[in-house]
Amino acid sequence: MAPISMSGKPQSPHLPFGDRQNAPFYGKDVLSVKQFERADLEYVFAVAHEMREMVARVGTFDLLKGKIMASLFYEPSTRTSSSFTAAMQRLGGCVININEVQYSSVSKGESLPDTVRTLECYADVIVLRHPEVGASALAAEYAEKPVINAGDGIGEHPTQALLDLFTILEELQRVDGLTVTMLGDLKYGRTVHSLARLLSCFNVNINYVAPEILKMPAHIIEELNGNGTEQTQSGDLESVLAQTDVLYVTRVQRERFENPDEYETVKDAYNITPQTMARAKENMILMHPLPRVGEIDMAVDKDPRAAYFRQMEYGLYVRMALLAMVLGKS
Amino acid sequence: MAPISMSGKPQSPHLPFGDRQNAPFYGKDVLSVKQFERADLEYVFAVAHEMREMVARVGTFDLLKGKIMASLFYEPSTRTSSSFTAAMQRLGGCVININEVQYSSVSKGESLPDTVRTLECYADVIVLRHPEVGASALAAEYAEKPVINAGDGIGEHPTQALLDLFTILEELQRVDGLTVTMLGDLKYGRTVHSLARLLSCFNVNINYVAPEILKMPAHIIEELNGNGTEQTQSGDLESVLAQTDVLYVTRVQRERFENPDEYETVKDAYNITPQTMARAKENMILMHPLPRVGEIDMAVDKDPRAAYFRQMEYGLYVRMALLAMVLGKS
Amino acid sequence: MAPISMSGKPQSPHLPFGDRQNAPFYGKDVLSVKQFERADLEYVFAVAHEMREMVARVGTFDLLKGKIMASLFYEPSTRTSSSFTAAMQRLGGCVININEVQYSSVSKGESLPDTVRTLECYADVIVLRHPEVGASALAAEYAEKPVINAGDGIGEHPTQALLDLFTILEELQRVDGLTVTMLGDLKYGRTVHSLARLLSCFNVNINYVAPEILKMPAHIIEELNGNGTEQTQSGDLESVLAQTDVLYVTRVQRERFENPDEYETVKDAYNITPQTMARAKENMILMHPLPRVGEIDMAVDKDPRAAYFRQMEYGLYVRMALLAMVLGKS
Repeated sequence: MAPISMSGKPQSPHLPFGDRQNAPFYGKDVLSVKQFERADLEYVFAVAHEMREMVARVGTFDLLKGKIMASLFYEPSTRTSSSFTAAMQRLGGCVININEVQYSSVSKGESLPDTVRTLECYADVIVLRHPEVGASALAAEYAEKPVINAGDGIGEHPTQALLDLFTILEELQRVDGLTVTMLGDLKYGRTVHSLARLLSCFNVNINYVAPEILKMPAHIIEELNGNGTEQTQSGDLESVLAQTDVLYVTRVQRERFENPDEYETVKDAYNITPQTMARAKENMILMHPLPRVGEIDMAVDKDPRAAYFRQMEYGLYVRMALLAMVLGKS
Repeated sequence: MAPISMSGKPQSPHLPFGDRQNAPFYGKDVLSVKQFERADLEYVFAVAHEMREMVARVGTFDLLKGKIMASLFYEPSTRTSSSFTAAMQRLGGCVININEVQYSSVSKGESLPDTVRTLECYADVIVLRHPEVGASALAAEYAEKPVINAGDGIGEHPTQALLDLFTILEELQRVDGLTVTMLGDLKYGRTVHSLARLLSCFNVNINYVAPEILKMPAHIIEELNGNGTEQTQSGDLESVLAQTDVLYVTRVQRERFENPDEYETVKDAYNITPQTMARAKENMILMHPLPRVGEIDMAVDKDPRAAYFRQMEYGLYVRMALLAMVLGKS
Repeated sequence: MAPISMSGKPQSPHLPFGDRQNAPFYGKDVLSVKQFERADLEYVFAVAHEMREMVARVGTFDLLKGKIMASLFYEPSTRTSSSFTAAMQRLGGCVININEVQYSSVSKGESLPDTVRTLECYADVIVLRHPEVGASALAAEYAEKPVINAGDGIGEHPTQALLDLFTILEELQRVDGLTVTMLGDLKYGRTVHSLARLLSCFNVNINYVAPEILKMPAHIIEELNGNGTEQTQSGDLESVLAQTDVLYVTRVQRERFENPDEYETVKDAYNITPQTMARAKENMILMHPLPRVGEIDMAVDKDPRAAYFRQMEYGLYVRMALLAMVLGKS
C-alpha cells in the first residue's frame, strides 16, 4: 500500500469487534509516527485498551482467525518479534516467521520488493524489520497488503513509540499536563525521537537530560517548538526529577564517547538506583525500551513505579490493536 | 512410506471436503514428478482449484485441524518454506519448523532416517528440503507418515513443477495445444526439467532457447520424444516469441561461463524487457520460478501478462491440495 | 515462580479435563527430578496416559486454547524443541519460538531474568533450554509464570527422565519389580543420573554396565543406597542381560578416552546388535535417549523390543501432561 495519513474521523471503537472495512485504518500501512494525529492516537489506544481487557478476561479470542501475518525480520529482535507473534496468536491468527533472512533468497540477491510481493501471496499482513532507513516505505510501495514497520535502522520504530505513549496513558490515565523527562542518549535513540513527536500531539512539558555529546538533535526540538510543546534541556537529572511524572531512561553506550574517561565521568549520572527513586514523585513511572545494561539497578525492579516490564505488556495490546485495525476488524 | 505410483482411478474431487481415506493419495509420499500421470495431475489441479476458491471466499478453513506438519529444511528456502507453512495454516493445521538443522542433532551425527522417525512421533506429515539427491526417497523409506519432497539438491522439486503447470492451467484454462518456450539456463535448472516432463503428459509444443553451453540435456529431449512431445531447440527467442503461449524464464548465471566475455555476449538475449513483451502474444503469460536477478526487468511487472507473482500464489493452492490429499481429506 | 516440592496429595486425574486451579501442579515450575515423589510421578503418568489416549482418538484437542508457550532455546535441540511445540499444538495452544538467541537481545547483553520477565508479558508458560547449570532455577526465581526446564547444561533435563520412566511404565505396565540395566557412558550422562533417581522412587534393581573410566558416579550410587535401591556394577553386559527387563543404552564417545586404543578395545562391548537381542528376554525393552551414533545397529530397529522411537512419542504425552498441569488444566 502507499503510505497514508491516518488522520480523519476515526469511528468510536466500541465493542463488539467485527468487520469494519470502512474503518479508517483498514488496509493501511503503519510506517511512521508522523502518520498519527491526536485523534488517530486516541482511536488506537481505545482499541488497545479493549484488547487489554479482552486478554485479561479470556486470554485469546478469534478476531483474526483465518488471517496470516508474515513476520519478516532482516535483523534479529526477540522482543519485537515475540510481541507481534503473540499479538497475532492472541487474536486467533497465524504467523509465518522469516527470521534467518540472511540465508534465504535475499542472500541469493532477491530484492525487497520481490520478497514482499511473494510473501503477500501467502499472508494478509507483513511485519517488517530491516536495518536500512526507508525499507518499510519501499516495501509498502510494492505490497498491496498492509505493511507494519517494526523498525528500519536508525529510521522509525513506530509501534515502539505507540506502546510508550500507551503505557503513559494506561499507567497515569492521561497525557495532557504531564512532565516527561527523557534521560541518557537522546542523540542516537530513535525511540526518544519518535516518542517526543507523539507527545507533542498533547499538552506536555518535556525535559531532556543528556551528556553534551548526546543531546536531543536541534531539528527535533525545533519541530516540537513549532507545535508549541514546552521543552527544557539539562545535563542534570536532579534539577527536574522532583517535577517529573514520567522518567524515560535510555542507554548511554560507552562506544559513543571518543574519550573513555569522559564516559566514566558521566555514566553514574545516568544510572537509576533506589536512591534516585527516593527523590522521585510517589506516582512517577519509570520507563525503559529494554534491553537495559546497567542503566537501571535491578534493586529498582520491585518498586511499583518501575513500569518497564509492564511497558512490554502494553506493547502486546498496541500491536493487537494495529493488526486488528489494518485487517479491518476494529 | 514407500514411494508409489499415483496413477489409477482418481475419484472426482467434488465438495464437500472430508475424510477420504480410500482416496488414491491418502498416506502417500510426494517425491517425484514421475509419480504423476495425466489423470493424477487433473485430480491434483481440481483440488487445488477448489482450494483457490475456498481461500478467496473464507481465507482459511479447518480441514486439517488437529494435524501437524513437520517442516524439515536442511537448507534455507524462504519461498518454499513459507508457502508450505501458509498452506498448512490456511487448512487449520499446525506447523513445526525445523530450519536450523545444521545446528541440531543432525550436526551431532544423527542420520536422516532417525530424524524422520523421531519427527513422525510428533507430526502427521513431513515436508523435507535437503541438499542431496535422493534424500526424500530415503526419508520416505523409513517414515511411516507421508513425506513431501520440497527439493532435494539437483534432484527433484515436484511441488514447484506442479505449481508451474497449475499456473498455466489456471491462467490459460488449458494445457493441450499450447506452445511453451523455456528460456535461459536449461542445463542445470531442475525446474525446467521437471516441468518439461509434466508437460509431456499433455499435447504441447516446447521450444528450448538457451546458450550453447546451457542447452536442455539430450536425455530429457529423448525421454519426451518417446512421449511424442514436439520439441524445438533454438539460440534465439525472437524466432519463437510470436507463437509462444507460455514464456518460462530462468536465470543465466555468470558463474556457468568459463569465459566472462561469453557471458556478456549472451546475457542481453535472455533478459525480458517491455520491448520483448511488445512483440509477444496478447494473452501470453510470462513465468519465472523466482528469485530473479535481472532476467526480467521490473518495468515488466505491471504488464498483466507477468504471471510470476501469481505463480507464487498458485503454489499455495497446490501445496494445500497435496497436504489435504496425503492426509486423507481430499 | 519459586521452585517447589510437588509432593503432597495429588488429586486423581480423571476425565474430563478442565480447570483445576486447585490442582497441585497449577502455576508450578518443573526444574528438577528431585521435585517429584512417587505420588507425583503417578499423577503425571496418569495424565500422560490420558493424553496418549486422547491423541490416538482425536489427534488434538483444545484444552490449552488461548494459552501461549514461549520456547526459549539458548542452544539447539531439535528433538526437545519439536516435542514441546507439538505438545502445545496438540492441546490447541500456540508457541512462540525463540531459537536464535545468540543473535537476539541476549547478545546485546540482556540478562536472563530480564528476558524471562519480558517473555512472560506475552506468554503463559516458558520452556527454557540453556547451556548453564542452574539457568532454569534462576529464570524461575524471576518469572511469575511457570518455567519448565528443558535441559540446563550438565545439570538437569527432568522431562527427559520423566518420559524415560513413562516409557517403561507404558511398555511393561509396571515399574516395581523390574531389573533395569544402564549401559555405556554412565559418568557424564545426565539422562541416566536423573532416570536412576526417579527409578529409586520404585522397587527396582539397577545394573550399571560401563567402562572403568565412565562408571556411574559414587555420589549417585550412595544416594540410591540411602533409598534402599538394589544396585550392581559390572563391566560386562552378558552377565546381566538375561535378567534385564529394561536395557537403557547411552553413547560411549571416543573423545572421553585419553587413549584411542582403549576406546577401540571397549566400544564393541557397548554396541547392541541382533545377536545381543537374541540373548535378551522376550519382553525386554531397549531404550536410548537419541541421537544414537552406532551404539545400536539399525538392524535392531525392526525388533519389537526396540522402544527408542516409541520413547520419543511417549515424550510428547509427558510434555502435554506437564503443560496442562502447570497451566491448571489437569
